[in-house]
Amino acid sequence: MRDFLPAELVRRRHVINTIQQTYEKYGFVPVETPSIENLSTLLGKYGDEGDQLLFRILHRRDKLARALEKSEVEEKDLGDLGLRYDLTVPLARLVANNSDLPKFFKRYQIQPVWRADRPGKGRFREFLQCDVDITGSKSLLAEAEVCSAVCEVLLKLGFSNFEIHINHRQLLKSLIKASGISIENEGNALVAVDKLDKIGVDGVAKELSQRGISEEQTRNLLTLIQRPCGLDEAGELERLKAGLAADSEALAAIQQLAELSALLKSTPASGHFNIDASLARGLGYYTGPIFEIRSPDFSGSLGGGGRYDGLIGMFKGSEIPAVGFSIGFERLVLVLEEKGLFGQLGCGPEVMICHFADVSDAKVLEAANCLREAGVKVEIYPETPKLGKQIAYAETAGAAFAAIIGATEAKNCTLSLKNLVTGEQQTLPWKEVAAHIKKP
Amino acid sequence: MRDFLPAELVRRRHVINTIQQTYEKYGFVPVETPSIENLSTLLGKYGDEGDQLLFRILHRRDKLARALEKSEVEEKDLGDLGLRYDLTVPLARLVANNSDLPKFFKRYQIQPVWRADRPGKGRFREFLQCDVDITGSKSLLAEAEVCSAVCEVLLKLGFSNFEIHINHRQLLKSLIKASGISIENEGNALVAVDKLDKIGVDGVAKELSQRGISEEQTRNLLTLIQRPCGLDEAGELERLKAGLAADSEALAAIQQLAELSALLKSTPASGHFNIDASLARGLGYYTGPIFEIRSPDFSGSLGGGGRYDGLIGMFKGSEIPAVGFSIGFERLVLVLEEKGLFGQLGCGPEVMICHFADVSDAKVLEAANCLREAGVKVEIYPETPKLGKQIAYAETAGAAFAAIIGATEAKNCTLSLKNLVTGEQQTLPWKEVAAHIKKP
Repeated sequence: MRDFLPAELVRRRHVINTIQQTYEKYGFVPVETPSIENLSTLLGKYGDEGDQLLFRILHRRDKLARALEKSEVEEKDLGDLGLRYDLTVPLARLVANNSDLPKFFKRYQIQPVWRADRPGKGRFREFLQCDVDITGSKSLLAEAEVCSAVCEVLLKLGFSNFEIHINHRQLLKSLIKASGISIENEGNALVAVDKLDKIGVDGVAKELSQRGISEEQTRNLLTLIQRPCGLDEAGELERLKAGLAADSEALAAIQQLAELSALLKSTPASGHFNIDASLARGLGYYTGPIFEIRSPDFSGSLGGGGRYDGLIGMFKGSEIPAVGFSIGFERLVLVLEEKGLFGQLGCGPEVMICHFADVSDAKVLEAANCLREAGVKVEIYPETPKLGKQIAYAETAGAAFAAIIGATEAKNCTLSLKNLVTGEQQTLPWKEVAAHIKKP
Repeated sequence: MRDFLPAELVRRRHVINTIQQTYEKYGFVPVETPSIENLSTLLGKYGDEGDQLLFRILHRRDKLARALEKSEVEEKDLGDLGLRYDLTVPLARLVANNSDLPKFFKRYQIQPVWRADRPGKGRFREFLQCDVDITGSKSLLAEAEVCSAVCEVLLKLGFSNFEIHINHRQLLKSLIKASGISIENEGNALVAVDKLDKIGVDGVAKELSQRGISEEQTRNLLTLIQRPCGLDEAGELERLKAGLAADSEALAAIQQLAELSALLKSTPASGHFNIDASLARGLGYYTGPIFEIRSPDFSGSLGGGGRYDGLIGMFKGSEIPAVGFSIGFERLVLVLEEKGLFGQLGCGPEVMICHFADVSDAKVLEAANCLREAGVKVEIYPETPKLGKQIAYAETAGAAFAAIIGATEAKNCTLSLKNLVTGEQQTLPWKEVAAHIKKP
């Protein structure tokens, strides 16, 4: 858990603002959901591992007393609320509960989530998620829009060394089946393949064998999911089609990937995506195309998403299709910092008012008020030590100017404005100070 | 706990932006702290009632198992973390832990806090706090700055029917003593007086008597703290001085209130404050001037604050003086809504692209991309039902324009732009559409 001091917070806000502005250009509207959800909403959506990473809220007073009276107290007796684990499940609950939302609900949501995970590089127990989702349509335009919006965010932030890896959940399932792996072992195979970029081919092979998948099946699967060197996009789609020619569901998935590729070429995502049959995405709820942002500048994913046509139905009864993309905000900030892509982001006052003891504090406030009315960011040094000390403080606070007010300035409603970069100083009426400070 | 849908969220953001911009003009810088704090940081700072309202996080796995092994399990065994209860204690912890902050740290913080309270009008279990604090100075300029900044926020939002009630913790203590109430009963008297605006004079009298304070003492106290009808600011200060002429600490407090009044007349708070010796503020940590925003438009406070010179020392060892003000964000939003002060706040796309089935989706994306590059908020209707249905949807989505693309428009890279207010329609090249939409 981290405190964010001003310099870092200004960088985070720059990223957030870029995300907001970009998503709004795509017609997405903002939503926020509560930090605390019913455990019944959260449990069973993220797999066993996810369930264990939930932060649960302890019952209070009577409820707690009653729970502790039992002879054998269990975790489930001690609370029925938990902290939000992601933004997708709350969205599904919200859409299921609000029947008067637009049919095609394009929402974005930027809020913290909590996971009781071991922290690592770019991994925290409280972290910001930035999600963009479209509910209500099965059109591939929805996939194209979320991928395009995410690419545009990264490019706007000056970061272009990335690719969106795209796969299709159905294609991957078909490849698992074609490898000879039984349907009972499909989940195990998915979990193992999901670790490919972390533990490599040998690691996945080991994990598959531990889960009772034969050497031959493992070899088949690893051959099928990995693109041969030098094969281009069209060639890769042909290779996959050839390997699954008898599987109509697989062919439909490949066709969708081909169409999505064609669409993305007409968007800012052009040149920033590839088809990757080895992409698995951990979460259980995906049903169609899946995405993940990878970059040579970061080991691990910078975000991901996909189509999940069944999740809202878990809350609503009837199905509502949906597709979404989540940016890994904390990792993105890390990468932007490492690559020096933030530039100069200002923070703090533009001018520090320095004053002498023989000037009334009321006069000082009047001067500050006059500058603030003109839109200047003004800090008042709260005490009256020697001028040099006040000016030195103005410099460390990052103010570009010190505005000095002594008896003469107070009488004439002027300020002696000192440029802390050039050292230049001039006396100006209060009303003219703002224009001088704002002048480029 | 509440979901915020776009229309409401846009109003909340408008308030947040106004607060941010105003506070930054005063030279305040932003800070954020984690949602989860150690219980040891939180407990004992908010009084017994506050401690009971903390949301505690349940231990997980081994720690939980060990806790449940005990024969007599207690609340304190089950967790050592809790959700943030306010923003002041986290600030005190942060200032105590970061010795390289500016000497006069002017920070603002806008984040949710959590209290397991009974919900009521404008009261929620998760709610936003907007705090502004200055640490490091005992100067009354600090009090003047936070009061002025808060007033400016309210006025900027179009709300002027409020007054900041100002008292001094030391003055109130001296008045309690002058009433003949023993020092042991001071805390009880403070708690009772704090309820004056909720339960009235009779209610406070009843509560004081229940706490063992005599009828005469009660009468004395209620006479001393209430301003007689028709007495102006200067008269009230004289009345208080006369009643406490032998109490040097009280006279110093009254002198501070007189000086603060004089300062505030030189700020946007002018005409929006009064001295109110009956103001108590519940929290235990105040040591000097205290503030509360009251309005005839809302029963209860719209925010409050004060000087707390001892709190940071509880974390640091050595004392750092501090003063702050917190806006009751949820209540403020409620009042602004009730008074219709939000006006028209836009949300959602400016233009909806409606398209025919014989136009490729790739072409539609190209057109959308061209408009978005020019800064237009564009939603694409994701499917191709009859045009009338698409246009009707554009209207309900609040788009000002529908941009229609059929085979001819696709061929010529044009759009038929329909103004959904006037019904006017014209065909324009993609590049000219943005200018037409943005035209005032």
